[in-house]
Amino acid sequence: MRYNLHVVLIEPQIPYNTGNIGRLCVATNSKLHLVGKIGFSLNDKYLKRAGLDYWSFLDYEVYKNFEEFVERNKNGRFIFVESPAFKLYTEVSYQEGDYLIFGSEDYGIPSEIIEKYWENSVTIPMFGPVRSLNLSSSVAVVVYEALRQIKKF
Amino acid sequence: MRYNLHVVLIEPQIPYNTGNIGRLCVATNSKLHLVGKIGFSLNDKYLKRAGLDYWSFLDYEVYKNFEEFVERNKNGRFIFVESPAFKLYTEVSYQEGDYLIFGSEDYGIPSEIIEKYWENSVTIPMFGPVRSLNLSSSVAVVVYEALRQIKKF
Repeated sequence: MRYNLHVVLIEPQIPYNTGNIGRLCVATNSKLHLVGKIGFSLNDKYLKRAGLDYWSFLDYEVYKNFEEFVERNKNGRFIFVESPAFKLYTEVSYQEGDYLIFGSEDYGIPSEIIEKYWENSVTIPMFGPVRSLNLSSSVAVVVYEALRQIKKF
Repeated sequence: MRYNLHVVLIEPQIPYNTGNIGRLCVATNSKLHLVGKIGFSLNDKYLKRAGLDYWSFLDYEVYKNFEEFVERNKNGRFIFVESPAFKLYTEVSYQEGDYLIFGSEDYGIPSEIIEKYWENSVTIPMFGPVRSLNLSSSVAVVVYEALRQIKKF
């Protein structure tokens, strides 16, 4: 199966967010990748509730750590969404099949990963006294900018 | 105070969503408008938790119904996000100060409002078996498309 995009969450902690992101992935023909220690059960009732009836339509994979994720997706182009970062998220030319990678709600993406992939890091600009957007909001913003650019609608 | 945008929620039901949207409004210098019967207390602990420490920075107003909202914001340009709708959300030319209007999680925007304002209605396209995105995800997608267009970054 050919996906529009891949959404990668490193150590997500809040089931409601991952549920919303799963719903977004189904809505956009994207595959979800869950990496490392997840802060809830994948049967968690909140996750199912947030994902409504859509979780069963979701294609997703689970990896024990980031190294395993890289090893199993080594042909992918990785784009890391973090703050600070090398570019704005609108300054990238997205391609079909890109991997959009997001960190946990508490800690973001580990700094050693961002340092290694710095030129592939992007940020969502903000104008007020907020450290970051909600994780599922950030995913929605970047996924739809990528879909717009690759002319999926 | 001059806001980048206005975000309007008609009868929001889930505090976690409104909390996330409040956080987004603070992050984007947007004002939040809450219209009609809200499904939770504005002191609700979930709303505060979802909004983290940001709720105190939020500018928001509450209206008892849509008529009062229109009366008190009659010089605004209203854009309604719903499905189906007249255009894609990317086909509008957004302007600073636009009012982006969203319905409740359960029922969307009342059909009599959409019919009246049909040519100002927009939709977020989807490609999978999902009826709608999560409310806070939808708000994030449209707010950031508008900010991108009006060159706020």
